[in-house]
Amino acid sequence: MTEDALIAQIRARLDDVAAERLLVGVGDDAAVWQPRRNQRSVITTDALVEGVHFTRAAMTAGEVGHRALAANLSDVAAMGARPVLATVALGLPPDCEPDWVLALYDGLAALARRGRCAIAGGDITRAPVVVLALTVVGEVRASNLKRRDGARPGDVVALTGPLGASRAGLCVALERTDLADDPAGAAALTAYRTPEPRLREGRWLGASRHVRAMIDTSDGLSTDLARVCLASGVGAIIETLPVAASARAVAARVDADPERWALDGGEDFELLVAIERRAFRHLAARFAAQFGRELLAVGSITEGAGLRLANGEPIPPAGWDHLR
Amino acid sequence: MTEDALIAQIRARLDDVAAERLLVGVGDDAAVWQPRRNQRSVITTDALVEGVHFTRAAMTAGEVGHRALAANLSDVAAMGARPVLATVALGLPPDCEPDWVLALYDGLAALARRGRCAIAGGDITRAPVVVLALTVVGEVRASNLKRRDGARPGDVVALTGPLGASRAGLCVALERTDLADDPAGAAALTAYRTPEPRLREGRWLGASRHVRAMIDTSDGLSTDLARVCLASGVGAIIETLPVAASARAVAARVDADPERWALDGGEDFELLVAIERRAFRHLAARFAAQFGRELLAVGSITEGAGLRLANGEPIPPAGWDHLR
Repeated sequence: MTEDALIAQIRARLDDVAAERLLVGVGDDAAVWQPRRNQRSVITTDALVEGVHFTRAAMTAGEVGHRALAANLSDVAAMGARPVLATVALGLPPDCEPDWVLALYDGLAALARRGRCAIAGGDITRAPVVVLALTVVGEVRASNLKRRDGARPGDVVALTGPLGASRAGLCVALERTDLADDPAGAAALTAYRTPEPRLREGRWLGASRHVRAMIDTSDGLSTDLARVCLASGVGAIIETLPVAASARAVAARVDADPERWALDGGEDFELLVAIERRAFRHLAARFAAQFGRELLAVGSITEGAGLRLANGEPIPPAGWDHLR
Repeated sequence: MTEDALIAQIRARLDDVAAERLLVGVGDDAAVWQPRRNQRSVITTDALVEGVHFTRAAMTAGEVGHRALAANLSDVAAMGARPVLATVALGLPPDCEPDWVLALYDGLAALARRGRCAIAGGDITRAPVVVLALTVVGEVRASNLKRRDGARPGDVVALTGPLGASRAGLCVALERTDLADDPAGAAALTAYRTPEPRLREGRWLGASRHVRAMIDTSDGLSTDLARVCLASGVGAIIETLPVAASARAVAARVDADPERWALDGGEDFELLVAIERRAFRHLAARFAAQFGRELLAVGSITEGAGLRLANGEPIPPAGWDHLR
């Protein structure tokens, strides 16, 4: 059973659980509730497991802390919200030294400070491997909340940055440590180990009524765009795939396909948006002025289901399935 | 390093992380923030790890789900709050069948329904053993929030129910399955596997201005009362230790000390409160009328530090340290 199939079954079981004030439940980047009329709170949770998402040999404790929080903050950004606080559930094996744990909290705290997110407590327990489950609460004005189900045929599909660098960094970390000193290899490693959640961009895009759907590219463009399409009852065509320069350079060295990394790699934590076509040019100009980077048009929302490339070739969702 | 010592060091590192709206951070049953002036939100997280907190052989999936949510709801109750929603981070080993996972959600959902707590989404990932990290958000009027630092010398220390049954159930589950059909053994097993968080009692006690401090007995009376005393800068004397009947009966069969189970056992999830002495009798009468059970006086808050028994014997904190 795939993750999405299992989640669909779980969702069916939770449908009738008391949720008068829950506006979005299982299935978006974050769940949404309504603490008061014009305010929405969002909550998201994400777990990192040693041996699945990281190894203590390939990543420092500070990087593990950073990455775990970055993934959650990215989900908050993808709703248009700003983070308020995080909780930390930490499982520690007996061979894990207090210094490692404190360094993990240092990594968490540094990113939390920049994102103005408080660390609000947690739970520490024994576990056979390091397990780090973070939950982040965010807040957003009701009118600025973005979900993944608002895309409409004709919308421009756009990204806050190019993709594939994180996947290239994974390749350097696990298979080609000799490339770690190469500038492209080092850039890819940084993208993989300490990704930057697009918090300011998410709030800015959330505030535009021309942005109709938003998601973060945590599981790969092919998977995450398919989720937007499925939720919105539409399809999409990818016309231009923006590949990170570091991903192109590393791919050339290891004879890999950088387009595939950009399409399926995941964990770049860029924001993927569907924008009303007539507003795109103006919005992209304002985005560039605000952030000094381009809002990259990658394709269009279409009638009907499924993803295709510009040449008509269908794209199967091939990103990260957490249970595969 | 003990859990409390490690938490103290973590806390020191997080002190300066942006937290203008965080009223209580690392160190109480739940963290507290202020979504609006007269309202407080609380958040708590708690993880269950297979092989540490449960085994799939000794506990059904539904019981694992129930227990994990019960522990979190109990923390919300201990702040005087009512639960709003829960998130679920779930790590699954490859040998874990979808049916087991769905049964776990059924256990979660049944308790969530009764507690009027929505299940608001989550994260599913691979892990070497089953890991279940839950986070629950609750809400409470600012004036009804109870912390652990308000106990004053002279206060009555009271419990919402007797202790030791969960520890007795653990003994039946792990060592004496032959007692599972015995009425006392069965009652103890139920207390261990499907503990009932004291949600209504917590909100009721939270609404009384005579209740000065509240905590739940998740880690054992000796440890949890010591936490109240440390946070409040006081000591306490335990005059009457209320031992659950099922704990006495099982202890007699296995030649264990039921008073020790009641003092150090933990996971009974009764609420422990410090109550203004002059108000205790009236409050206890109202509690009994409301809930059909006694609010049990167990001792007094004293000047100075530390816990003692009525005979003057000091009580070292000997409950559950999650890292021991």
